[in-house]
Amino acid sequence: MNFFKRFSQGNLPLGRIEAFSDGVFAIIVTLLVLDLKVPQLKDPTDVNELAHGLVKILPQFLSWLISFIIVCKFWLNHHNIIRYAKHANYGMIWLNSLFLMFQSFVPFPTALMGQYPSNPLAVSAFGIIMTLSTLLFMILAAYITRNLIKPELDGKKDPTLKWRSLAGPVFYMSGVTMAWIYLPAAFCFYAVTPLFFITPPKMRH
Amino acid sequence: MNFFKRFSQGNLPLGRIEAFSDGVFAIIVTLLVLDLKVPQLKDPTDVNELAHGLVKILPQFLSWLISFIIVCKFWLNHHNIIRYAKHANYGMIWLNSLFLMFQSFVPFPTALMGQYPSNPLAVSAFGIIMTLSTLLFMILAAYITRNLIKPELDGKKDPTLKWRSLAGPVFYMSGVTMAWIYLPAAFCFYAVTPLFFITPPKMRH
Amino acid sequence: MNFFKRFSQGNLPLGRIEAFSDGVFAIIVTLLVLDLKVPQLKDPTDVNELAHGLVKILPQFLSWLISFIIVCKFWLNHHNIIRYAKHANYGMIWLNSLFLMFQSFVPFPTALMGQYPSNPLAVSAFGIIMTLSTLLFMILAAYITRNLIKPELDGKKDPTLKWRSLAGPVFYMSGVTMAWIYLPAAFCFYAVTPLFFITPPKMRH
Amino acid sequence: MNFFKRFSQGNLPLGRIEAFSDGVFAIIVTLLVLDLKVPQLKDPTDVNELAHGLVKILPQFLSWLISFIIVCKFWLNHHNIIRYAKHANYGMIWLNSLFLMFQSFVPFPTALMGQYPSNPLAVSAFGIIMTLSTLLFMILAAYITRNLIKPELDGKKDPTLKWRSLAGPVFYMSGVTMAWIYLPAAFCFYAVTPLFFITPPKMRH
Repeated sequence: MNFFKRFSQGNLPLGRIEAFSDGVFAIIVTLLVLDLKVPQLKDPTDVNELAHGLVKILPQFLSWLISFIIVCKFWLNHHNIIRYAKHANYGMIWLNSLFLMFQSFVPFPTALMGQYPSNPLAVSAFGIIMTLSTLLFMILAAYITRNLIKPELDGKKDPTLKWRSLAGPVFYMSGVTMAWIYLPAAFCFYAVTPLFFITPPKMRH
Repeated sequence: MNFFKRFSQGNLPLGRIEAFSDGVFAIIVTLLVLDLKVPQLKDPTDVNELAHGLVKILPQFLSWLISFIIVCKFWLNHHNIIRYAKHANYGMIWLNSLFLMFQSFVPFPTALMGQYPSNPLAVSAFGIIMTLSTLLFMILAAYITRNLIKPELDGKKDPTLKWRSLAGPVFYMSGVTMAWIYLPAAFCFYAVTPLFFITPPKMRH
Repeated sequence: MNFFKRFSQGNLPLGRIEAFSDGVFAIIVTLLVLDLKVPQLKDPTDVNELAHGLVKILPQFLSWLISFIIVCKFWLNHHNIIRYAKHANYGMIWLNSLFLMFQSFVPFPTALMGQYPSNPLAVSAFGIIMTLSTLLFMILAAYITRNLIKPELDGKKDPTLKWRSLAGPVFYMSGVTMAWIYLPAAFCFYAVTPLFFITPPKMRH
Repeated sequence: MNFFKRFSQGNLPLGRIEAFSDGVFAIIVTLLVLDLKVPQLKDPTDVNELAHGLVKILPQFLSWLISFIIVCKFWLNHHNIIRYAKHANYGMIWLNSLFLMFQSFVPFPTALMGQYPSNPLAVSAFGIIMTLSTLLFMILAAYITRNLIKPELDGKKDPTLKWRSLAGPVFYMSGVTMAWIYLPAAFCFYAVTPLFFITPPKMRH
């Protein structure tokens, strides 16, 4: 049998794929907080020293916040696309695993950007990972829509979805570019991007 | 279509929202223990040195204990309120994500308070996060009760619930205030607050 | 209404309690590995130095192994007892949370015992936590059997179960005592105890 | 009753075993990223220094990547084999727990290999753990196929499955051997092995 055709085989129930994916998403958003380290104080009772210590790690809070919202957005989009599938096959499972691999990597660029917010390489690395994540998600979504879509949902796609999906990589890459020109703009691009996806696709009614 | 109205759209099943939320809650309560560090000993076999080391981190144990019970209480209340919803929409999902964001942040103020129990800023930061968490939960609960409540449960609300809910922020903020006056009182306020919610609401029979 | 009686109220489905508990158990057993630190080498390519480094943390591997099996045993017993319940009430949920609190604490005494295997206090602390965990589990089990048992399962209890349950605390406390007399015996007691529970209760047929 | 026979008793539903296993798998793949530490920079804004720091931890990225794919492959195989079982008994649960124990251990050899990629002992330890994991999985699979298989699936086994399963240990052990001869070859063997299992078994149609 054709090697590539074998991936389209299998008729796996979606339950455990959702359970595994939900687990990964839940752990990522919760692990992100581990990168926020309590500042070390010379005088443990000194309010001013602690206040300064907390202000100093503000970029890490910001980095955590942006990542949290982005991962939640991915979870929601993932939730939406999986519902279109009538079942899972091996191709979908591996695309899903690849997508989750990039998701589970998110704490690293988050920590990098949080720790070196004035280093263009650190800030642009964050955007590159997010761009790749989005592209992988788009491939997963396209695979499901083409091969595994529930017959009753076929043709009901939101016509704006493709353009909105493209907005993700475009905005993240704009952030990547801005990281080398004007750093605060990069943070803005990253923070704004998930807002394109906080409303539901138009197709459901 | 109106931007805000779009949030009330969507007819999402509750299963994955519960799975994601349960995952986040389970990870938070379990991650809390990572902040309890084994004391470093000069003589690894010295019982007295270890005993002293453990006594020294008593505030961290206390901080862990209070956080554990508070997060469990939030989980239980979350469990209760989600059961009222007939389904989920985008507004509920984002309010839920925002609430979970503050929950997943809990290990940070817990570590802060555990490490600097005699620093008013550290102790009051804990209470402020808990107040904000409770307010976000109340907004989520109000949103569900107003927009998504199962018809058969409508009007069966526990009349004492609103007052009990308010007790949360009031007590946490009392702890925040006491942190600047008499520190042990702040710990007492934090520890006592979840006890208001350990019995079920009166409405179910 | 009587304060204590309110705990027996509520008719909560078991699904989310199982999901939350399974999540906590799964995270505990997996977090245990984080205490196994890669040894620091002067010469990164030196095989002998690495071999010595790994031998030196053998007590940590042993401590990890014992904890892993004990937590799996608790998960299995928890699994069994929850199946007896027809539904959950607030009393059961709080006993369950208290039990999970001690379970989620396990990584701390595990790290303590792994790092200071020749410190009687560290080794006995492990046994004390396990004893308290077992007692809390017995209380949870007794509560379910008395108040929430499915009618069709009532009276079908394994008569050996009570004695086997008691074996847990007795063996753990023997380990605690031996920690002060002859340390290796304590490790043996801890390792042997879960083996009492690896076969199923006799009642099912 | 015969001691060994008791393990074949019990008629446990598969739901919580799957939930527990999925939780463990999800946590392992996500925890792996914690071993990727942000490089420490003297000048936080220096792009070159950060680039060098990231290049220096390339072996850790590679180690993370290999482990991620291997654990996903185990999850998928686990998913497949559990579906064959009509229910669970104690023997299966303990074999499953033993298998999960080795899985949850994976972050340690991953960190070891990532940190000391030019140390033959570190690189071969990775392969040995993977070999043992695969053997434990084969024992679990054999136990299910012999004792718990759903009647309608019996006899439908993929005849190539046994040979493919053996490919796992053979390739991992080749990697272990190569670690002592030519290190890059060991990495190749480890990376290639999961690719034997990315297509589904032939039996389903």
